[in-house]
Amino acid sequence: MNLKQNYFRPEVTEMAGYVPGEQPKIPNILKLNTNENPYSPSPLVAAMLRNYDIDLLRRYPDPRADELCAAAARLHGFTREEVIAGNGSDDILTMIFRCFTDKERGMSYLYPSYSLYQSLADIQGCPVTRIPLNPETFELPDNLLEQARGSNLLIITRPNAPTGKSYPHEVMNEICARFDGIVVFDEAYVDFSMDSCLDLAKEFDNVLVTRTLSKSYSLAGLRLGFAYGSRKLIGGMYKVKDSYNVDRLAQLIGATAIADQAWMRNNVKMIRATRTRMIEELRQMDFKVVDSETNFVLASPPDGDAKKFFDALRGEAIIVRYFPEPPTTQYIRITVGTDEEIDRLLDFTANYLGVKRKQ
Amino acid sequence: MNLKQNYFRPEVTEMAGYVPGEQPKIPNILKLNTNENPYSPSPLVAAMLRNYDIDLLRRYPDPRADELCAAAARLHGFTREEVIAGNGSDDILTMIFRCFTDKERGMSYLYPSYSLYQSLADIQGCPVTRIPLNPETFELPDNLLEQARGSNLLIITRPNAPTGKSYPHEVMNEICARFDGIVVFDEAYVDFSMDSCLDLAKEFDNVLVTRTLSKSYSLAGLRLGFAYGSRKLIGGMYKVKDSYNVDRLAQLIGATAIADQAWMRNNVKMIRATRTRMIEELRQMDFKVVDSETNFVLASPPDGDAKKFFDALRGEAIIVRYFPEPPTTQYIRITVGTDEEIDRLLDFTANYLGVKRKQ
Repeated sequence: MNLKQNYFRPEVTEMAGYVPGEQPKIPNILKLNTNENPYSPSPLVAAMLRNYDIDLLRRYPDPRADELCAAAARLHGFTREEVIAGNGSDDILTMIFRCFTDKERGMSYLYPSYSLYQSLADIQGCPVTRIPLNPETFELPDNLLEQARGSNLLIITRPNAPTGKSYPHEVMNEICARFDGIVVFDEAYVDFSMDSCLDLAKEFDNVLVTRTLSKSYSLAGLRLGFAYGSRKLIGGMYKVKDSYNVDRLAQLIGATAIADQAWMRNNVKMIRATRTRMIEELRQMDFKVVDSETNFVLASPPDGDAKKFFDALRGEAIIVRYFPEPPTTQYIRITVGTDEEIDRLLDFTANYLGVKRKQ
Repeated sequence: MNLKQNYFRPEVTEMAGYVPGEQPKIPNILKLNTNENPYSPSPLVAAMLRNYDIDLLRRYPDPRADELCAAAARLHGFTREEVIAGNGSDDILTMIFRCFTDKERGMSYLYPSYSLYQSLADIQGCPVTRIPLNPETFELPDNLLEQARGSNLLIITRPNAPTGKSYPHEVMNEICARFDGIVVFDEAYVDFSMDSCLDLAKEFDNVLVTRTLSKSYSLAGLRLGFAYGSRKLIGGMYKVKDSYNVDRLAQLIGATAIADQAWMRNNVKMIRATRTRMIEELRQMDFKVVDSETNFVLASPPDGDAKKFFDALRGEAIIVRYFPEPPTTQYIRITVGTDEEIDRLLDFTANYLGVKRKQ
């Protein structure tokens, strides 16, 4: 005998849930839809795994992931107490929402940016202010602080997805100084960009910066993210994290990957070079392309019919991402792959448009 | 300029946070405090890891962990849609709390049982009813349903930790039929016990059963848990889970370990045999020992001074768990290790009591 129809919280019943980018299974697929890195993780990771003693897996992991966090802290001149590790930066974002939002404590984010923020807000049942970017330039509105006022949490994705743009550092500084709440800089793509806001997390005690090993370190499959901030903010986040949120293998692989900075930097350098070339060629073919500080490019075909171009690419097993809502209706988002992969994309594009590639 | 002193939700500011069992670093340590398995995971896992192509880690994992969940479902005669995987069963419990509890929707659990429930309730800010077990026998109170009335969620740890006891299946059946809310059976230790409540998750659409690979499969370091239940309950849980909550390696290792049932069963058999011998010997030395259906034993020394015995064991680098609050003040909880490890514990215990071991 079930007396009630539904025991779920109404917020859960009503929400749709986050939909991750698809992982299709097609032969000869060129997967440029989820901003994965085209180059392998550090070979040190492979060497470590080959010699890993699985008997260690009998034991619980270090609940604080001390060695991993110490490595992540050292890398950017933070102390151990100013860093927390998560099962992906999604887990870090979950902790942030559980710490700082509820039905009375709202949050603000920029639109378009990472759609997971809305899902996490739905789960918490917190009020949301969606602050639109300029629909032409994808720049910040001048009255951002005014729109965010009253929120307890403001998330700025920098550089932003899916636009690829960053925002001026001095504007970020001003926001941190003036916003009466927590400012989170989601820096998932920062290694592909010009500058970081980690200095602001050191300067201001209401600022957190999140990082991930998914993109620049080629470890999307592993799930490792971090938050950097003051001892007080990080200490509070430890209270709400799952006690053993990062498993033993992930802790070890993460520390190994972080130790090999040269490998990561070299991959980033290659991706940036490919990105530059790809943007140039697309512009030569009359695409409108947003300047990118990430490992993806937001581009609009000459006729503005992004859906048609998206479908045509898909017909060739080239999978990119299309966000049909304004202001991205006329754009597709393309992950920067290897030179060879991007040549395949550009060859098809020239063919699709009936033009010749200039290079 | 920070205008407010504290941006944390008051629930987070006030809570203590869950404290995991310690992972001390002492030479010649005998670690019997966190119910880890003394035997290695399946050798199939080692073979798989040695040949793992780390290039796969560039790619996001399957967000639904389909192969892993299909294996977990098949194992117990469920369909794919009736299973969800978590980053440990702690992650599964987090999803359950986020689905079914909030300030208006309270939860009940038995005391003593797993202390994480209280921490998760604190994070959600939900009302909690702590239902005491019989302080002598650790059995369920007759008026359990009356005490749980009004809660939206009732968690029964079966077999229970830290007592080691199970509860009659027919009583569980009655609870499922009569409780107006979600009943969760936390079956972390079930492989060491006589029977499961998975049949009740099949029969009743308000029932969930949680499982973990941490104990019987020797994979505490990996973080893999599952929930089994009706499509409707499991479908709702998918909405609140982190999108990529189980990483690629964990999905593969989990499926590999589940495939090797013989290995797990054999380890469980050895642990049960050691448990029987250990309980007999402790009773011969006048310990009061609770019957155990788990991989640990709750035992009270002849003089009832558990703290003194705990400290004496620690002086010999034998680490067990002590829960100082009533009704376990006079007990320690000892994980069942290998025969050799338990002989070391029993040798010391005989010496501590000034008696001779009978065997």
